[in-house]
Amino acid sequence: MKPLDYAKAHHEDFLAELKEFLSIPSVSTQAQHRPDMVKAATWLQERLLAAGFSKAEVMPTPGHPVVYAEWLAAGPDAPTVLIYGHYDVQPAEPFELWRTPPFEPTVVGDDLFGRGTADDKGQLFIHVKAMEAFKETVGTPPVNVKCLFEGEEESGSINLDAFIEGHQELLAADIAVISDSGILGKDIPAIVYALRGLAYIEVTLTGPAGDLHSGSYGGAVHNPINALCAMIASLQDKNGHITIPGFYDKVRDLPEEERAELAKVPFDREAWLKEAGVPQEWGEPEYTINERVSARPTLDVNGIWGGYIDPGAKTVLPSKASAKISMRLVADQDPEEIKNLVMAHLKSITPPTMKIAIKEMEGGDAAIVRRDSPAMKAAFNAYAAGFGREPVFMREGGSIPVVATFQKVLGIETILMGFGLPDDNLHAPNEKFHLPNFYKGIETIIHFFEGLREFM
Amino acid sequence: MKPLDYAKAHHEDFLAELKEFLSIPSVSTQAQHRPDMVKAATWLQERLLAAGFSKAEVMPTPGHPVVYAEWLAAGPDAPTVLIYGHYDVQPAEPFELWRTPPFEPTVVGDDLFGRGTADDKGQLFIHVKAMEAFKETVGTPPVNVKCLFEGEEESGSINLDAFIEGHQELLAADIAVISDSGILGKDIPAIVYALRGLAYIEVTLTGPAGDLHSGSYGGAVHNPINALCAMIASLQDKNGHITIPGFYDKVRDLPEEERAELAKVPFDREAWLKEAGVPQEWGEPEYTINERVSARPTLDVNGIWGGYIDPGAKTVLPSKASAKISMRLVADQDPEEIKNLVMAHLKSITPPTMKIAIKEMEGGDAAIVRRDSPAMKAAFNAYAAGFGREPVFMREGGSIPVVATFQKVLGIETILMGFGLPDDNLHAPNEKFHLPNFYKGIETIIHFFEGLREFM
Repeated sequence: MKPLDYAKAHHEDFLAELKEFLSIPSVSTQAQHRPDMVKAATWLQERLLAAGFSKAEVMPTPGHPVVYAEWLAAGPDAPTVLIYGHYDVQPAEPFELWRTPPFEPTVVGDDLFGRGTADDKGQLFIHVKAMEAFKETVGTPPVNVKCLFEGEEESGSINLDAFIEGHQELLAADIAVISDSGILGKDIPAIVYALRGLAYIEVTLTGPAGDLHSGSYGGAVHNPINALCAMIASLQDKNGHITIPGFYDKVRDLPEEERAELAKVPFDREAWLKEAGVPQEWGEPEYTINERVSARPTLDVNGIWGGYIDPGAKTVLPSKASAKISMRLVADQDPEEIKNLVMAHLKSITPPTMKIAIKEMEGGDAAIVRRDSPAMKAAFNAYAAGFGREPVFMREGGSIPVVATFQKVLGIETILMGFGLPDDNLHAPNEKFHLPNFYKGIETIIHFFEGLREFM
Repeated sequence: MKPLDYAKAHHEDFLAELKEFLSIPSVSTQAQHRPDMVKAATWLQERLLAAGFSKAEVMPTPGHPVVYAEWLAAGPDAPTVLIYGHYDVQPAEPFELWRTPPFEPTVVGDDLFGRGTADDKGQLFIHVKAMEAFKETVGTPPVNVKCLFEGEEESGSINLDAFIEGHQELLAADIAVISDSGILGKDIPAIVYALRGLAYIEVTLTGPAGDLHSGSYGGAVHNPINALCAMIASLQDKNGHITIPGFYDKVRDLPEEERAELAKVPFDREAWLKEAGVPQEWGEPEYTINERVSARPTLDVNGIWGGYIDPGAKTVLPSKASAKISMRLVADQDPEEIKNLVMAHLKSITPPTMKIAIKEMEGGDAAIVRRDSPAMKAAFNAYAAGFGREPVFMREGGSIPVVATFQKVLGIETILMGFGLPDDNLHAPNEKFHLPNFYKGIETIIHFFEGLREFM
C-alpha cells in the first residue's frame, strides 16, 4: 500500500482523532484553561509518537509548553524539514453566536465546525497524519522531519523567539513548512511567498497638565486631540501615500514579471468590496487592490482615544490624546529602522504646545521567499497533484513573524502551505475547516515530502 | 438702622444659616438625594418668607422643583428685578480627597469649605440676606423682587427653559441678576458682560461594515480613524483659525474701545500659563489671550474614540471612528445656524469611502449685555462701594444658557454679579467660598438694589 492510499482509506479515523484534539479547549490567553494547554500538548505528544516519530517531548517555556518531535530516519543525505504549527486556539467568546458548541466539533455538510478547526489544530494535524501514512506503508518518511508546535501563537508567541534562539541545534533544518494560512477557494490552490512585516507604536500627546474647561481656556490653549489629528493627517496624502521622509527608501520594487504573476490570482472586485464591506476601494492608484494589500506598506491608526467618550456632551479641553499607529511593511523595510524613522518624524512635527510620549510595541519583519527554489517547486507540484490544479503564487498582507525568525535565527526559508478557505471564520464564532481540504491537505503534504526528496 | 449696618452686624447669624443650607446634600444628579432636593427647596422657601418675601413657593417641574418667590412692595413705578440662582450642587465624589467633609461646612481661616459654598448656595444666599436687611431696617426693598431658584443647574437645567416659557407673566421683570460666577481676585471686583455660546455635535464615520484585519485589508480599505483625523485637521489652520466657509460671518467685531477696556483686566501671563498647565499659549496671534478665550469663537474636539483602545497592540482596521466636536460662539453667531453650517461642511468633505452620521447635542446662545445701561451703572457703583475699588468689565469664555433664555423669552438683560474667586475649586473636592466675599457680596447687593431704584 502506498502512503496516499493509506491516507484515502482512513478519513474516518483521521476525523475522529481530530475531533478529540479539538475537544480540548486550549485557549492560551485564558488562565482557567492552563490545565487544558498541558492536556493538549500531551495529547499531541502521544499522537506524534503513535505516528512514528522517534522522539516527542513537551518542553517548558516561561509560558505554555512547546511540543517538539523528530523523526530523522531518512538519513544524513536527505533534507530535514521543520514543521511549525500551534496547538493553542483563540477564545471562543461570544459563545451565544456559535451555531454548534465551539469545543464539541460538529460536522455540517462538508465542513467541520469548532474552535481551532482551521486555526491551527486541523492544519497542524494534516502533517501528523501524513507522517502516519508513511509509517504505516513505506515505514519512514522520505525526508527527515522535526516538529515545533507552540502553545502561544494566539497570545503573541511571546516566548517563541527565545525558544528558537536557545535551541538552534535542535531545530536545525534545511527548510521550514507552515500550514496556518489559506488558499483562494475550494479548488484554487495558492502558495503565499511574501508576508508583510509590522511596526507598531502608541503615541500620547499631552497639552495642558490637567483637563480644562473648554469655555474658560478654549481658543488660547492648544487641544491635544486637535493637535494629534493634525499630526496624523499629515502622515499621508489622500491616496494613502505615506509622506514621512525616507519611508519608502528600502521598499523592494515590484518587477513587471512579478506583477504579471500576481495578476493571475483570481480576483473579483465586486466580491472583494462585499467581503470588505466597503462602497469602494481606496489607496495608491498606481497599484491594484491585491498589490496594495500585500506588496505595499501602509499606515493605519488602529485605535484613538482622548477626552470625554461617554454618552452626552461634556465641554472638556482634555489634557491628553493617544493613538495606536501601525505600519505594515514589505521587504526590505526593517521594522526597527522604520519605527525609529516614524518616531523621529513624529517628534519633529510635534507642536511646541505639546509633549509627546511614544511607546514602542512588538513588530515583525516582512518575509519574502524565492518562487524558484527547489522546495517551492516541490510545493507547487504537490498542490497540483493534491488539488488537480496548479497553484497561483500570491502575497499575503498579514504577518507570520516566525517566518522571519526562522530566516534570521536558523537561516532557512519557509514554505507556507495553507489549506484554509477565506470564509473559515478565523478568530470568530463558527470557525470551520472544509473537510475535503483536510483530506486533500494530507495528500498534498505526502506529495510535498516525496517531492522534496527528489528536488533537494 | 440702615440695611448696610444690619448686614454688618449679623455676620455670625448669616454664616450659621448658610451652614444649615449647605448641610443638605442637594446633589441633583444622584437619585438617592431626591429627598434632599425637596428638603433644600423647602428650607429655602422658609428662609425667603422669613426674609420678608410675600410669597414663596416650591413649584414642581418634571425634575427637581423650582423655588419661586416674590416681594412686590416697591410699587408699580419701581423696577422689578428677577434673581436667578440654583440650590442644587455637584456630586462631592471622590470624598477621600476632601480635607473637611463636603456636607459638614467648615470654616478654615477666612474660607468656608463645603460642597455648594461658592456654587451656588453661598452666592444665592447673599440675595436672601440682602433682602432680610431691607426688611429688618427700612421695611421693604427699594425695588420689586422676584426669585427663580432652580434645582437642576448641575444636571443641565433640562426643565428650566420650559418652566420660563410656561411662566412668562409670573417671571416678568425689567432686569435679571445672577450671582453664580466670580471676580478676578479678593480685591479685584469684575463684571462679566459677555458669555460665549455653544454648538456641539458628535460625528461618526463608518468605513468598512465591520472591523477588518489591517494586514489583510490595510492599503486598499480607507481607515475611518485616519479619515476622521484628516477631516478634523482640515477645520482649522495652525493658529486655530477656523477654515469652515462662513463660520466668522456673523462674529461681532471687537472695537478698539472695547479692546482697550478689556486690556484693563489684570492679567499675568506667567500665572495664566501655570494655572492652565501649559508651556505656552496658542491661538489667533492677532488677539490677546483674554480675547481669544472670551471674544473669539473656537473649535475643540472634546472627545475622540475608535478602534482598539485597551492596552497592547491589536492590528484592527476599525469600522468606525467618532468625535465630539464643540464650538464656543460669540455674539452674534447663532448656535443652530453654526451647527447647520458645520454639519453641511463636514458632509461636503466626507470622502466617498466613508458614511457620516452626526448627532446634534444641546447648544446655547452667546450673550452680551450693554456696559452702559442703567442697571450696569448700578452694578458698577455697587461693586465700587462694596469692595472699595471700581470693577473691571470682562468677558467670560463659558456659557450660562439661562442668560440667553431670559433675553429671548422674557426680553430682559442679565447682570452677572458674581462673588466667587478663581481658586474656589468649583466642581472639585475642597470647594470653598471666601467669607469676606460673602459679606461684601451682601453689602454690594444692597448697594445694587438701592442704586437700581435711582437709575431706572
